[in-house]
Amino acid sequence: MAPPGAPSSSPSSSSASTATAGSGSGSATAPTQSRILKFVPWQSSVTADFWHGLANLKLDVLRLDRRPLQIQGFFAPCSHPRISKPLQLTYESLSLELGTESPASDRNRCPAPGTLYNTNTSDEFNSIDRDALMNEETAKVWDDICSGRAEEDSNLLNRFFVICYADLKEWRFKYWFSFPALQFTQAVKHTMFQPASDYFTAEESLRVVSACTAWRTSPLTTCLSFFLLHLSCDGVTVRPLSDWEKCQGSGKILLGFYDPSHLPTNPGWPVRNLLVLAAVRWGLKNVDILCWRELQGRTDLRHCFVTSATFEEFGENTNAVPKAAGWEPSARSVDLSSLMNPDMLAKSAADLNLKLMKWRSLPSLNLLLLSKTKCLLLGAGTLGCEVALRLLAWGIRDITFVDYGKVGYSNPLRQPLYQIKDCGRSKVEAAQEALRTKCVDVRAQGHQISIPMAGHSVSGNQVEETFDNFTKLQSLIEEHDVIFLLTDTRESRWLPTILCAAAEQSKIVINAALGFDSFVVMRHGEGPFNSTQDPRLGCYFCTDVVAPTDSTVNRTLDQQCTVSRPALAPIAGGLAVEMAVVVMHHPLGPAAPADQAVSVTTSIEQPMGILPHQIRGFLAHYAQLVVSGIAFDGCTACSPKIVSEFKARGFAFILEALNSPNYLEDVAGLTDLLHATNSMSLDWEGEGDSDLGVPDMA
Amino acid sequence: MAPPGAPSSSPSSSSASTATAGSGSGSATAPTQSRILKFVPWQSSVTADFWHGLANLKLDVLRLDRRPLQIQGFFAPCSHPRISKPLQLTYESLSLELGTESPASDRNRCPAPGTLYNTNTSDEFNSIDRDALMNEETAKVWDDICSGRAEEDSNLLNRFFVICYADLKEWRFKYWFSFPALQFTQAVKHTMFQPASDYFTAEESLRVVSACTAWRTSPLTTCLSFFLLHLSCDGVTVRPLSDWEKCQGSGKILLGFYDPSHLPTNPGWPVRNLLVLAAVRWGLKNVDILCWRELQGRTDLRHCFVTSATFEEFGENTNAVPKAAGWEPSARSVDLSSLMNPDMLAKSAADLNLKLMKWRSLPSLNLLLLSKTKCLLLGAGTLGCEVALRLLAWGIRDITFVDYGKVGYSNPLRQPLYQIKDCGRSKVEAAQEALRTKCVDVRAQGHQISIPMAGHSVSGNQVEETFDNFTKLQSLIEEHDVIFLLTDTRESRWLPTILCAAAEQSKIVINAALGFDSFVVMRHGEGPFNSTQDPRLGCYFCTDVVAPTDSTVNRTLDQQCTVSRPALAPIAGGLAVEMAVVVMHHPLGPAAPADQAVSVTTSIEQPMGILPHQIRGFLAHYAQLVVSGIAFDGCTACSPKIVSEFKARGFAFILEALNSPNYLEDVAGLTDLLHATNSMSLDWEGEGDSDLGVPDMA
Repeated sequence: MAPPGAPSSSPSSSSASTATAGSGSGSATAPTQSRILKFVPWQSSVTADFWHGLANLKLDVLRLDRRPLQIQGFFAPCSHPRISKPLQLTYESLSLELGTESPASDRNRCPAPGTLYNTNTSDEFNSIDRDALMNEETAKVWDDICSGRAEEDSNLLNRFFVICYADLKEWRFKYWFSFPALQFTQAVKHTMFQPASDYFTAEESLRVVSACTAWRTSPLTTCLSFFLLHLSCDGVTVRPLSDWEKCQGSGKILLGFYDPSHLPTNPGWPVRNLLVLAAVRWGLKNVDILCWRELQGRTDLRHCFVTSATFEEFGENTNAVPKAAGWEPSARSVDLSSLMNPDMLAKSAADLNLKLMKWRSLPSLNLLLLSKTKCLLLGAGTLGCEVALRLLAWGIRDITFVDYGKVGYSNPLRQPLYQIKDCGRSKVEAAQEALRTKCVDVRAQGHQISIPMAGHSVSGNQVEETFDNFTKLQSLIEEHDVIFLLTDTRESRWLPTILCAAAEQSKIVINAALGFDSFVVMRHGEGPFNSTQDPRLGCYFCTDVVAPTDSTVNRTLDQQCTVSRPALAPIAGGLAVEMAVVVMHHPLGPAAPADQAVSVTTSIEQPMGILPHQIRGFLAHYAQLVVSGIAFDGCTACSPKIVSEFKARGFAFILEALNSPNYLEDVAGLTDLLHATNSMSLDWEGEGDSDLGVPDMA
Repeated sequence: MAPPGAPSSSPSSSSASTATAGSGSGSATAPTQSRILKFVPWQSSVTADFWHGLANLKLDVLRLDRRPLQIQGFFAPCSHPRISKPLQLTYESLSLELGTESPASDRNRCPAPGTLYNTNTSDEFNSIDRDALMNEETAKVWDDICSGRAEEDSNLLNRFFVICYADLKEWRFKYWFSFPALQFTQAVKHTMFQPASDYFTAEESLRVVSACTAWRTSPLTTCLSFFLLHLSCDGVTVRPLSDWEKCQGSGKILLGFYDPSHLPTNPGWPVRNLLVLAAVRWGLKNVDILCWRELQGRTDLRHCFVTSATFEEFGENTNAVPKAAGWEPSARSVDLSSLMNPDMLAKSAADLNLKLMKWRSLPSLNLLLLSKTKCLLLGAGTLGCEVALRLLAWGIRDITFVDYGKVGYSNPLRQPLYQIKDCGRSKVEAAQEALRTKCVDVRAQGHQISIPMAGHSVSGNQVEETFDNFTKLQSLIEEHDVIFLLTDTRESRWLPTILCAAAEQSKIVINAALGFDSFVVMRHGEGPFNSTQDPRLGCYFCTDVVAPTDSTVNRTLDQQCTVSRPALAPIAGGLAVEMAVVVMHHPLGPAAPADQAVSVTTSIEQPMGILPHQIRGFLAHYAQLVVSGIAFDGCTACSPKIVSEFKARGFAFILEALNSPNYLEDVAGLTDLLHATNSMSLDWEGEGDSDLGVPDMA
């Protein structure tokens, strides 16, 4: 499996390296006979944060794009007598693609140019034509050498590439490195491989150390990993490869390179392309090589080696790209899920499906918007649980529950957020906790407050508590962007409706209500003083000609519990969230006009589909209707008269309304209207309430 | 609060009773002056099992029915010097209503006839007209007395009634007892209240004890709680009230009654109606009363008391019902949830919503059927979780998951049964556990097996494992009634489809599949050799003209994960369960023909709505279509040729089909068909697959 020219034993295995290496620097002194020079392959090392960076790049930017990525590997000379230096990929290796600042290179992080070929599937990875790819990459190295570019920027000789498949569902990465090294047709030979301290005279040694240290300490040169070591009567200098011509004529030149290998018998992989450059560009057939290694970062010639390499000539035929070697022995894979903190893993996985959606189905999806949108759920029962789950799935993280109740023993079977162990606890508390078991970064809140209800009269000693609840609800509505009305009575929706209609900022108000086998999901139009719509869309109360009253008096058990077919809540809750998400994405937001029904055989331009005013569902018919209706001027919740009266009188208005439904009817003008006419025909499109059996409670 | 005629201090309070009682039997000896006789009110005691029985009766039988219930209270004479005996309601008090065997009455459980007025709401309870009810019940006692019935069956004098409201959601019961006692217009007086042992001579005492013991030990008389004690020269006898005439003329008669009171100064409540009877029927104005009490079940005259009661005459005017007293001081309430084992509570609450459904919306709902139906869910992912939740809500308890996968980090946000802590666990294990946290009596199972997939070739060393998976899947399908196909590839549905089509017993097969914003939910027709349908309904593969193949090759990440709008799975999963429940209730079961689409303005006769073959949903349009299609003779999964070949060759057929899709096409006749014609028109009603964009995966 080792590429040709590599030492026969694995260089990463210390026992194997002992077998080929001598027992110390003493045994390596100047053999005179010529032997094949074997090179220690480079090893790769990839940090977890590289994979994280790649995963994010793939999910957020690249998606299905398979273009090769420009990456940087980092390397340095060997710095430990028993450990080779790998070429490393870190998060900063991706800076070119991530558009982040270029990484600071330093003496310990010399950059090598690389290419990442990321595939979209495991099969694609397995069936990649590695020979063709190697040829392509080899040609680049060859071209860098022949064109002289490699003398200007010698790190080009360390060009590498990686093929990769990132399984972001399981956080497993499969990858295979290659460090293409051009090959002579015959093996490179050497006659010695000895410590530099033995090769140089004591005087030379001092000068070499001094010159090399200067090279390695200057920020301008420290990362140039190939160099010329020029020994002349003028002294010892270290120079870039491009100074080759300038050094001719006097003294002696060694080719130096930062050697990642630690073996006392073999140089590292990078020297191979240097020898080819020397042969092709300078016509050399043999040269002494300084394998520059350090000892814990310090210069120490006892750890540097010098070898005398002999190799064949390259003819004039520089158009034929030589063969190359350099694949690591096999593909590797890493399972990051086991390394990652489970919370981290969960967090990064949380939005996986959404990010995947952006790849193909829904490129316009605004995940940032969703993650910043604050949702208020009035009611944490059957509908509230369903809505919360779908919000999480859509990437919404600010979820606030309002409910006064406790988890009852019949709830866990119908309300997915609750378990038997939660029975007796406050719903808002249990619901928050349940969301946290599913999503580490959810910002869930809960407020156990009772929503004051129209027609439920408030006696003297309850006024203070009612005021507190009113105030709390009002500020919660102001603080949130999307308000879901999911309570189980009609009258508990009245106060939230008027508070939303009177809010400073227009709110997205989504209302869902269940019957036994039918439901309505609707969005309220903007408040009368915020609206730029003409006509405004109606609210839940716009079809009423009487004020909401206490409907809980004399409710029998089957009326107190949500008695609906089990599929109804997930369907209505799901549609409520879809509608909210579509409104969030609409440029007009809550002011978006109502789309009308479109036949299913008609294709729809908007990527998320139409944005209706109301959806009414009929389980017995397996049917849904799209309906819209404009605001009613006598509405007891959103008409201008009501909202301005509320704005003028505040809680006093609310209190009067709670205690006397007739008051609301008077203010809204319903009383006069009813006197004036016995039969009303409302300006509704589609069919009227009673025909469609609009449900009353959720 | 105490009714008129009751002792002014509460009889249940021992300190209070000490205040009115003397310091022992000695102090109670024969006062000669006449004093007002006060009666100790009866106390009620209701066991938890009574409430359980009532709850079940209400949920399962009565529902909204408010007719008065005939119940029985149980009582006995006081048997402890410091504790009065209450009138008790137990589970057996409901035997008349439950239709169970009449409870055995015995000396310690004498029956008193009672009426339970159960209300449907708390408001109804609070607003009940208690005076009117009391008048009505008093009239019954009066009538029993005047008609002479009370002399034949003296326990009628102990008639009682209860008003009640059972909040079965919270397991709280509010109730108020009344023991109607007819009142004289003036207070009853007495001149003595003394231990019977002091009242009778020693000789009399022996005879009284002997006669009373005989009465109390005979099963014929032991429960007759009112009696005559006749002392004559012939001896002492105890006799029923109806013997009044027979006892006249000789000796002395005392009226006796089983006295629940323990107070040494006051008789218990039951004597009041006895005195009225004596006045009305026998014209008495005074009489000696034996308050029969026992000591730990034994006769002991030191603990019995005799009092001489004086009262006014009742005139001839027996048509006017006298006033009565007898309400307990206040309503009581009991919170059974705190007494119940939480598991028990959860269990009984589990089906609450379903039972309530039967009250009004869906009387034909067959809960027993649902609780016995075994459901197999192939796939425990996005759809599998939703389906399991809705099955639980419908009262289905046998739920078996089949899935090979583990919970991944992106699952908890989309798959409601999983939490972050489950990541890395087998899905079927985590899913079962999740169901148990919601339902104590769910019988959940899980099998982590990989479903062999058409077109996924099986190499030699995989044959054994494939055979095991095949065998396991086949037996699971045979063992279950409803099979849900909820996997995420088309080809993984093939084997289950053919196994269902070839099963001995017809299965209900429900298939749900998701696209990005569309879904299909359908039921498969019966297998070709089980079917009595003509034409048969099609299966998922009936629209295909090629065999299913490996679609997972080269699936990119967004194709591997369920990338669908979040509401899609709850909607499709919900509809799949609704469809299954409707099929279960259809008299023809899986053989039920397909209902066609019905306009939402048309009312539907079937209580659960229509039963279509397929529902196709389009989220972008907020629309659903009802579609149906007949079985295709060349179907690679359910055609007679395929099923008979499978029946003949078994696993060998399957193995060949897995390895070679062409083989299936050959057997099904598709190959010939394709040769014969280039364009096909399938016999579909509604619109074709491609127009509607039928999704491929779940």
